Amino acid sequence: MPILNKDMTLCISLAARPSNLGTRFHNFLYDELGLNFIYKAFTTEDIEGAVRGVRALGIRGCSVSMPFKEAVIPLVDELDASALAIESVNTIVNDGGKLVASNTDYEAIAALIAEHDIRPSLPVVVRGAGGMAKAVVAAFRDAGFAEVTVVARNEGTGSALAEKYGFRWQAVDPSPGPFALVNVTPLGMTGADEGALSFSEEHVAAAELVFDVVAFPAETPLIRLARARGVPVITGAAVAALQAARQFEKYTGMSITADQVERAAAFSRQAV
Amino acid sequence: MPILNKDMTLCISLAARPSNLGTRFHNFLYDELGLNFIYKAFTTEDIEGAVRGVRALGIRGCSVSMPFKEAVIPLVDELDASALAIESVNTIVNDGGKLVASNTDYEAIAALIAEHDIRPSLPVVVRGAGGMAKAVVAAFRDAGFAEVTVVARNEGTGSALAEKYGFRWQAVDPSPGPFALVNVTPLGMTGADEGALSFSEEHVAAAELVFDVVAFPAETPLIRLARARGVPVITGAAVAALQAARQFEKYTGMSITADQVERAAAFSRQAV
Repeated sequence: MPILNKDMTLCISLAARPSNLGTRFHNFLYDELGLNFIYKAFTTEDIEGAVRGVRALGIRGCSVSMPFKEAVIPLVDELDASALAIESVNTIVNDGGKLVASNTDYEAIAALIAEHDIRPSLPVVVRGAGGMAKAVVAAFRDAGFAEVTVVARNEGTGSALAEKYGFRWQAVDPSPGPFALVNVTPLGMTGADEGALSFSEEHVAAAELVFDVVAFPAETPLIRLARARGVPVITGAAVAALQAARQFEKYTGMSITADQVERAAAFSRQAV
Repeated sequence: MPILNKDMTLCISLAARPSNLGTRFHNFLYDELGLNFIYKAFTTEDIEGAVRGVRALGIRGCSVSMPFKEAVIPLVDELDASALAIESVNTIVNDGGKLVASNTDYEAIAALIAEHDIRPSLPVVVRGAGGMAKAVVAAFRDAGFAEVTVVARNEGTGSALAEKYGFRWQAVDPSPGPFALVNVTPLGMTGADEGALSFSEEHVAAAELVFDVVAFPAETPLIRLARARGVPVITGAAVAALQAARQFEKYTGMSITADQVERAAAFSRQAV
């Protein structure tokens, strides 16, 4: 690292529980590319004051995590198409005092769906109804998928999410079939549920695509099973890396290669 | 420098025209002492928003320069004795959400006066009537000096400063005599006035102490002349280094040695 200087551009993140992921991802690339930028994660109990501080201090970029993704909407000057699609912000770019908000989770999911070249007639089963489920459902809808089923135990949140995008909710999985299966629950995540498989073996065996939004570990039980069965996968680690890359590009105005994204993501994951 | 991480404590400065001095001074010592801190200079056009950002982001320390030294007074929670003495703030410490303001210029000047062990009966001649002149006049008064003369061409600011602390103003220097001579004008500073001597040779020859608040260069024409005549000196570079050291101690809670202060100051001055 060079010695810090007054002209460095600062980017930050705001989260109730900051992780080291963004700080390591962005600083790794600033260092590699020789950019006069620094990045640091913050928490706050005053999101309005924090965003005002972003303006007043000329902070260039601000990643936004739970529980601030909706709260920042009235505090910015403009929502781009990605933020409008899911009414949720995870990225703010300060463009000479104008705060433009976007959602790189949505962008990353949409890009990964497009990259896998899946036929839009494939029925999609989304398990979960939280913030990331909204990004997933919206991205599938916006990619032209006509049949998306939201599976969630809670009827209130599940049916609200499904109806918002013109789809249906049900409490339990449909019978196994040629689906795109998407897990957006914590099942399989490092911690209490790390051993849990979010869809049954029969479902995975019959699926045409398995997408797990869980990013830690990169190889969840669901992803490992899908790979073993030869089912194409999209991992949560890929979503996390790609969304961070999109943020990097928005903050710095520079494009980065897939190799750089991969190495920065690997570096960021070492500390978690 | 270690790779930046989310737990680093951020300290900043706010100035209309940020310099690299503070950023280099503090980061040099963070590095040397292995502290998980970073420091960066900022400017702002919204001082209220910037101080709100300090609170909302949990920024630990904030150095305050022109033109914000008075403007921040209503924005903090408490003024300590040094800030009250001159109604001017150059340092804010965020103590768990409570913003305590102080003035380390005043503290540094007071400490350097005390260190030189000058008799308080020595008449003091202060040339200049700006913000630093206030710190100088207040520090001499608070050290028990009974006779301070403010010399300034502008009667309005000169007499206002003198009267505020119970002293007198005059437009021109008194005749040479055994004075403590203090320059608080830009005369002798790097730039247009760098060749200018702020007191006459006769005044310097007769003086018992010469104090130049100009910090760049460290050896102003006034300081060089005083040294040549064997007159004890206090330099603006010493004030700048000591005030930064006081800030460092307030922000980190750590004491630093004179040697550390000197090396950090020398490092900070390399980039100016």
